[in-house]
Amino acid sequence: MTELYFIRHGIAAEQQSYECDDARPLTEQGVRKTRKVAKQLVKLGISFDSIFTSPFVRAHQTAIILQDFGLGNQISISPILAPCGDLRQWLDQFDRLKFPEDKSCRRYAVVGHEPDLGDWAQKLVWGDATGCLVLKKAGIIAVALPEEGDPIGRSRLFWLTPPRFLSDR
Amino acid sequence: MTELYFIRHGIAAEQQSYECDDARPLTEQGVRKTRKVAKQLVKLGISFDSIFTSPFVRAHQTAIILQDFGLGNQISISPILAPCGDLRQWLDQFDRLKFPEDKSCRRYAVVGHEPDLGDWAQKLVWGDATGCLVLKKAGIIAVALPEEGDPIGRSRLFWLTPPRFLSDR
Repeated sequence: MTELYFIRHGIAAEQQSYECDDARPLTEQGVRKTRKVAKQLVKLGISFDSIFTSPFVRAHQTAIILQDFGLGNQISISPILAPCGDLRQWLDQFDRLKFPEDKSCRRYAVVGHEPDLGDWAQKLVWGDATGCLVLKKAGIIAVALPEEGDPIGRSRLFWLTPPRFLSDR
Repeated sequence: MTELYFIRHGIAAEQQSYECDDARPLTEQGVRKTRKVAKQLVKLGISFDSIFTSPFVRAHQTAIILQDFGLGNQISISPILAPCGDLRQWLDQFDRLKFPEDKSCRRYAVVGHEPDLGDWAQKLVWGDATGCLVLKKAGIIAVALPEEGDPIGRSRLFWLTPPRFLSDR
């Protein structure tokens, strides 16, 4: 069983303050909220065999927070996870990078951007994307891929949460 | 804004011990886990303007647990929420029973069965059902209906959680 946890980057600095969109860092609030989410994931007993992330600073920082909390040892930066990446292309890359399924369940974090991650999750479970899944900043959508064959349109959505329903109160 | 929280009944007694499927009660474990979910919903600040439930004992008991935790004052039993109910028929009934949208957000719990609730949620967000949403016992799928017009194929999924990712640890 392979599970993908699509995690959107936390709250980032406004676009107008940065010349390049890829350089925008998380705000203080973004860091704080993302750390809360990471802490809660640890509490829920989740850990990742690997963390894949967009190279954009706000995503990479989010991935590093997950790593800092011990949620995964290894971070792989993938340009395909930058905005407007292609799911099929990423799946091909993922097929080469993923671990063998020598244990019952392999879990991977995929840190990136909207609307891509929501669209990718939709394509995996539904085959097509219509923008009907709400993925908040630092929110999570988790899908289970089928045992074999093409995962597009054949995966199952088993978790979708905004950070406000995840963070400890 | 109208939000529907589809909540599947908790773990129930095995079918072979009961002549009628509609009489099967929650098990002790089912009650315990459902109470944990209800407690967590309270902690998350959620409350319902009304709780709609299938008349089957295991669903009705689940609705009563939600009520006992103060999540909603009013329970409406609807035969359309029994297994194999029709979404369109239930939406017509809901339109007559729901409160006016005189506050910014109205939230309703809809307690019932699988595969119906997962299929209904799918039809609301995608227009069609393919069994790609995983709804565990005492799990939740929450959708936001559009401001106006037919909600089928036009709603948005903003939460889907199994109880294990919700209960306090």
